[in-house]
Amino acid sequence: MNAMRSNKIFFGIVGGGPNSWIGHVHRIAARFDNRYTLCAGVFSRNKNISMKFGASLGLDPNRCYSNYVEMALKEAKRKDGIKVVAIMTPPSSHQRIAEKFIEKNINIISDKPFAGDILQAKKLYKKIKSNKKIKYALTHNYSAYPMVREAKKMVELGKIGKVEYLNVEYIQDWSEGEQITSKNAKRILKWKMDKSIVGCSAVLNEIGSHAYHLAIYISGQKAKKIYADIEQISKKIKCDKNARVLMNFDNGAKGQLWTNVLAKGGVYGLRIRVYGSKGSLEWIQNDPNYLKFNPSKGAVILKERDFYFSKFSKKFSRVKYGHPEGYLDAFANIYKEFADFLNNKSKKKFFFPNEDEGLETAKFINACKISSNKKKWVEVK
Amino acid sequence: MNAMRSNKIFFGIVGGGPNSWIGHVHRIAARFDNRYTLCAGVFSRNKNISMKFGASLGLDPNRCYSNYVEMALKEAKRKDGIKVVAIMTPPSSHQRIAEKFIEKNINIISDKPFAGDILQAKKLYKKIKSNKKIKYALTHNYSAYPMVREAKKMVELGKIGKVEYLNVEYIQDWSEGEQITSKNAKRILKWKMDKSIVGCSAVLNEIGSHAYHLAIYISGQKAKKIYADIEQISKKIKCDKNARVLMNFDNGAKGQLWTNVLAKGGVYGLRIRVYGSKGSLEWIQNDPNYLKFNPSKGAVILKERDFYFSKFSKKFSRVKYGHPEGYLDAFANIYKEFADFLNNKSKKKFFFPNEDEGLETAKFINACKISSNKKKWVEVK
Amino acid sequence: MNAMRSNKIFFGIVGGGPNSWIGHVHRIAARFDNRYTLCAGVFSRNKNISMKFGASLGLDPNRCYSNYVEMALKEAKRKDGIKVVAIMTPPSSHQRIAEKFIEKNINIISDKPFAGDILQAKKLYKKIKSNKKIKYALTHNYSAYPMVREAKKMVELGKIGKVEYLNVEYIQDWSEGEQITSKNAKRILKWKMDKSIVGCSAVLNEIGSHAYHLAIYISGQKAKKIYADIEQISKKIKCDKNARVLMNFDNGAKGQLWTNVLAKGGVYGLRIRVYGSKGSLEWIQNDPNYLKFNPSKGAVILKERDFYFSKFSKKFSRVKYGHPEGYLDAFANIYKEFADFLNNKSKKKFFFPNEDEGLETAKFINACKISSNKKKWVEVK
Amino acid sequence: MNAMRSNKIFFGIVGGGPNSWIGHVHRIAARFDNRYTLCAGVFSRNKNISMKFGASLGLDPNRCYSNYVEMALKEAKRKDGIKVVAIMTPPSSHQRIAEKFIEKNINIISDKPFAGDILQAKKLYKKIKSNKKIKYALTHNYSAYPMVREAKKMVELGKIGKVEYLNVEYIQDWSEGEQITSKNAKRILKWKMDKSIVGCSAVLNEIGSHAYHLAIYISGQKAKKIYADIEQISKKIKCDKNARVLMNFDNGAKGQLWTNVLAKGGVYGLRIRVYGSKGSLEWIQNDPNYLKFNPSKGAVILKERDFYFSKFSKKFSRVKYGHPEGYLDAFANIYKEFADFLNNKSKKKFFFPNEDEGLETAKFINACKISSNKKKWVEVK
Repeated sequence: MNAMRSNKIFFGIVGGGPNSWIGHVHRIAARFDNRYTLCAGVFSRNKNISMKFGASLGLDPNRCYSNYVEMALKEAKRKDGIKVVAIMTPPSSHQRIAEKFIEKNINIISDKPFAGDILQAKKLYKKIKSNKKIKYALTHNYSAYPMVREAKKMVELGKIGKVEYLNVEYIQDWSEGEQITSKNAKRILKWKMDKSIVGCSAVLNEIGSHAYHLAIYISGQKAKKIYADIEQISKKIKCDKNARVLMNFDNGAKGQLWTNVLAKGGVYGLRIRVYGSKGSLEWIQNDPNYLKFNPSKGAVILKERDFYFSKFSKKFSRVKYGHPEGYLDAFANIYKEFADFLNNKSKKKFFFPNEDEGLETAKFINACKISSNKKKWVEVK
Repeated sequence: MNAMRSNKIFFGIVGGGPNSWIGHVHRIAARFDNRYTLCAGVFSRNKNISMKFGASLGLDPNRCYSNYVEMALKEAKRKDGIKVVAIMTPPSSHQRIAEKFIEKNINIISDKPFAGDILQAKKLYKKIKSNKKIKYALTHNYSAYPMVREAKKMVELGKIGKVEYLNVEYIQDWSEGEQITSKNAKRILKWKMDKSIVGCSAVLNEIGSHAYHLAIYISGQKAKKIYADIEQISKKIKCDKNARVLMNFDNGAKGQLWTNVLAKGGVYGLRIRVYGSKGSLEWIQNDPNYLKFNPSKGAVILKERDFYFSKFSKKFSRVKYGHPEGYLDAFANIYKEFADFLNNKSKKKFFFPNEDEGLETAKFINACKISSNKKKWVEVK
Repeated sequence: MNAMRSNKIFFGIVGGGPNSWIGHVHRIAARFDNRYTLCAGVFSRNKNISMKFGASLGLDPNRCYSNYVEMALKEAKRKDGIKVVAIMTPPSSHQRIAEKFIEKNINIISDKPFAGDILQAKKLYKKIKSNKKIKYALTHNYSAYPMVREAKKMVELGKIGKVEYLNVEYIQDWSEGEQITSKNAKRILKWKMDKSIVGCSAVLNEIGSHAYHLAIYISGQKAKKIYADIEQISKKIKCDKNARVLMNFDNGAKGQLWTNVLAKGGVYGLRIRVYGSKGSLEWIQNDPNYLKFNPSKGAVILKERDFYFSKFSKKFSRVKYGHPEGYLDAFANIYKEFADFLNNKSKKKFFFPNEDEGLETAKFINACKISSNKKKWVEVK
Repeated sequence: MNAMRSNKIFFGIVGGGPNSWIGHVHRIAARFDNRYTLCAGVFSRNKNISMKFGASLGLDPNRCYSNYVEMALKEAKRKDGIKVVAIMTPPSSHQRIAEKFIEKNINIISDKPFAGDILQAKKLYKKIKSNKKIKYALTHNYSAYPMVREAKKMVELGKIGKVEYLNVEYIQDWSEGEQITSKNAKRILKWKMDKSIVGCSAVLNEIGSHAYHLAIYISGQKAKKIYADIEQISKKIKCDKNARVLMNFDNGAKGQLWTNVLAKGGVYGLRIRVYGSKGSLEWIQNDPNYLKFNPSKGAVILKERDFYFSKFSKKFSRVKYGHPEGYLDAFANIYKEFADFLNNKSKKKFFFPNEDEGLETAKFINACKISSNKKKWVEVK
């Protein structure tokens, strides 16, 4: 019945099956603002599993596929076919899946990273740009937190002056409290150990990409040259776990990025600070409804989401100040904006990440890999 | 199409129209976990407005009502009629609306407070208990935060020993930065000034009820006797704005409750501390993913939602530790649990607030009013 | 040698012997700014102990007394006798000791509370006022934190408008992690169980007095009427442990004070919030270098000690912003100011607590005792 | 008079004159625990200024010098001459001043850094080691915070397992809210612009040395190889302002150090995190009475100074938990321990920084300078 509502968008999913955490997240995000109707999906390469899971989501069995090529083909033929596909498979498959839907003029919401490596990224970028009929959104979801956008706006408005230093980090602990060994690595890390799935770098594709995206999103600057030192789990277990990166930005600013997926007891992770000629900003995912603004000459200002003098953040808020928002509220902002964008609802500016930022992040990761191998400063290009 | 899914529950809404903040919140909460299909509603007493707003939500025009009596009657007659009605009108109407649906065997999710005053509360309670076919949930949503439930569980398990002291407060600022005067009061406070709408006490019905509920929910204790001092805005503006309450609990514990809706610059508001014979707990809505546990003899433990050693909270979490949840995630927990409850999905214990807690809170508010008038300690009964 | 320096003040101590924590604190405070030379003391009623301890502090054996009357007499006769005596004995002895020194024209720094009960307080007050030659300071040391004084100044300057609400609490845990019983009470609580030593109320004299003083110090208001509920440890152990107080202030403001010395796992204790018609202030001893200012209509401002826009706090700071100060730095401010005051160094305004605030606090405690007994609102007079 | 006390140590000062902030700090630290008597000093190269300032400190005019060579010579000849000299001049003079006193068998407390550059550092180190009669302490004062020592102890005891990652930063803002230009640089930065005074690197000598020292102090590891990028204020103003350093430690751990003296609005600065195989530790100077311990598999533990389960910290504490200590309390710990050490008071282990740590830090800074010039990884040696 809801599906009859004219402004709800028919969408489908590739990935995000029964054991997927991120699948759950995307589906909540899609429902959040009542803008999408889930109609189709590939939830497994096994037809039965895909149908069973689809049924649990209320899908028509005929639209539960086990193959994304088939899905793109069949959905494109239906009058009530999906307008958007959300891709939430591992990194290395993003490009080839997206391309099939682009060819069928189906818009894309893709989980990050943009692609598994730079070659895939360049191909995908070209493909997206080649089809003017489709739109593309990339779920670098942290950039959709209202106070992150408040920060971006403040930088744009010159509130901290010229950006001079940037410090960003995203650390996690994938270890489940164990030391990773040849014996337990596969059980604990699963596909994240396999470069044909996770792409060129586990730590950089999985979370480093978020950190870099956040940095360029807020600062409005891109890294021009970087120096990276990437560390694998061990000589035998060639899975990147740690990356330390020095960044020199376009405008002369200097920065550091640290990302690590085996920082034990270090779950708190995503934090960014931007220092400008007139003051600095700090945002921490753990306390996402606040943005710390330290003017160069003045008391610290703790801006709260949706509060007086944080007006920009209000556009991306659903609940009043004093009532915390979280990860899912932010994630849903991308789905919501993309719906508005597709509906040409207004000529307003949009703030969700797209293919340009996706390619930029892929270039950064590629430069990191080269720099770490050569032990040299490398241009991001 | 989704509506065809067997385990989705047809539900309707009374209240929560175009200008309602809480209506927006309830609808997101209902969508969150894909367990409800919105089918009907009274969104205004004006038929046109109700239909227009209903249409924007994708509703069948025939099921957009302007009168809850009509809605209860007609929905009860439909084969595909609603199973649940969510009531989100002002306090004084909760009882009479709920009763109509109870008579038609339609389950209730009601916004707080339970009722506008003690008389209404007692009637409503009796009505609910009189119909074994219906279930009732009350959206004292703060009790659905995972770490609040972790706290409740810890108290139950004796982690802090016997509860000895309790301190709870919920303060807000409704002033919009102005001094309330006879001139601007109506513009700023709207129906909250009118006792026939807001019920016996603006501050206690609107937010004090939350604070008291949270206290009894976590501590497992009820106030036996209380001493309250309630303050109106002014002699002319007879709208309760501030309440200071001393509480003596069943088990001998002592407590304090403070609630205020005109605490300027005091928007941070909901905080509870429970001190037991072995340690204390502290939870603050502003930092909802954490629970501070101070053992009597040992370092402070900062429990994080869904993290090791906060296992109970995991049951009520959707995203992994390190990724903050907020107000809407908690609110949705009540809708989710109520769906499970209606579906008899399991014999598991449920944690959403119900009519017993509703009546208890109404008794407390009533005792506060009497105590404040008489300037005496009063039994909560 | 240092003693020859003209502007160093000769001072003596009564109390603060080998096992005294507060003695240690006072002596560090006196040394902090190089303004005093310790010359004499009564460190025990046992002459040998007093001499031995005095020797460890570098004192002349002839000036290590075992009796304060003797000390007052002899020091008054010496040409190089003490100009100031610091009294750090238990509450009930403050009055009688101070009086002996006042009679000899020796200035007083007294530990809090002003006196053991209201009778002593009134006598002492009269005595102080009767001798124009002497000056008196009371170590309500929390009021000497730079950011507390910044808060006081902000209220004076009208930054938060008219004070409307006040919430102050000081809770501690004296239990050492045990349940207090008739058996262990004396071992754990020592003289704090004995009213002839601790005065009329253990919890109010020991820490409640600090909380109330802080409230009147910052707000510039005094409680006019109060309603208090004081709780003893048990029927047998008649030692006040918990006090809940409602306060109505001179200017119409309402407030609450909570103090408790057996709040298990509740060691974090001293916190004050003042809400005015234009905004609110919050200060917590645990984070003493900051003052939170929430303007009614504007982002929260986190003022740091000695930082831009916290200029008043600079007067009372020794180290630069970014470098935390603590309890001892604040305590020493009282000694430092008192030295300046005695030296008539300038006509500047002084901010240390004196006999007026001491008497006021004694009146408050007395009113609390009466109110709690009568279960009535009582005037503070 | 106090000077007659046998266990008080006669000490003198070189530097720390009327306009010196650090001089003030050292003198308070020396007085804190009543273990030193200030007897002599060079407070200026101008005899009159030195005498006048010395007089204000209560010194004998004959012992107020204008030249440290003279002071060393004359004090060494006196029977009551100083046993310890505290040096608090700019970095480049530390070595030559210290050497003169070492030659006269006078013990040294030196402000950091150990020396102006690696050549000076090696000479000074040799000199110290050549005279068995003298002891040397270096005021890397941050390492004397009780909770820093608790952290060191926890690492030693294996509480976080093998150290794997380390992140340390110390950032300040010397700009006084202005953009540094050729015109205002000298006014704002003073001698910090002059390498003949500040030594080889302003940012690394002034604050980076503290950050590195803290890292090796807590972790028990030294950097083996480092990669550094140091930035000057501008081509014209050759004053190092920013250093980003990657560190590979002896035991295989990886680390990052960031130090900056022109991070606008970034005054909060000193923070260290150490990640081990079993958990991590975090300490922030801004909240110095706490140490965050994140076990790999378990809730975060917030250890408080002097509290249950932070027993080691108690040794270095003066006031009880719940009462904050700060910068001066920590600074004084070095003076206190050094006094104990000189008095051979016990065979206890000492924790103050000495010449070994001084040389190590000088090597690190030297390696940073070389690495930044060569754009290569460099061994710390």
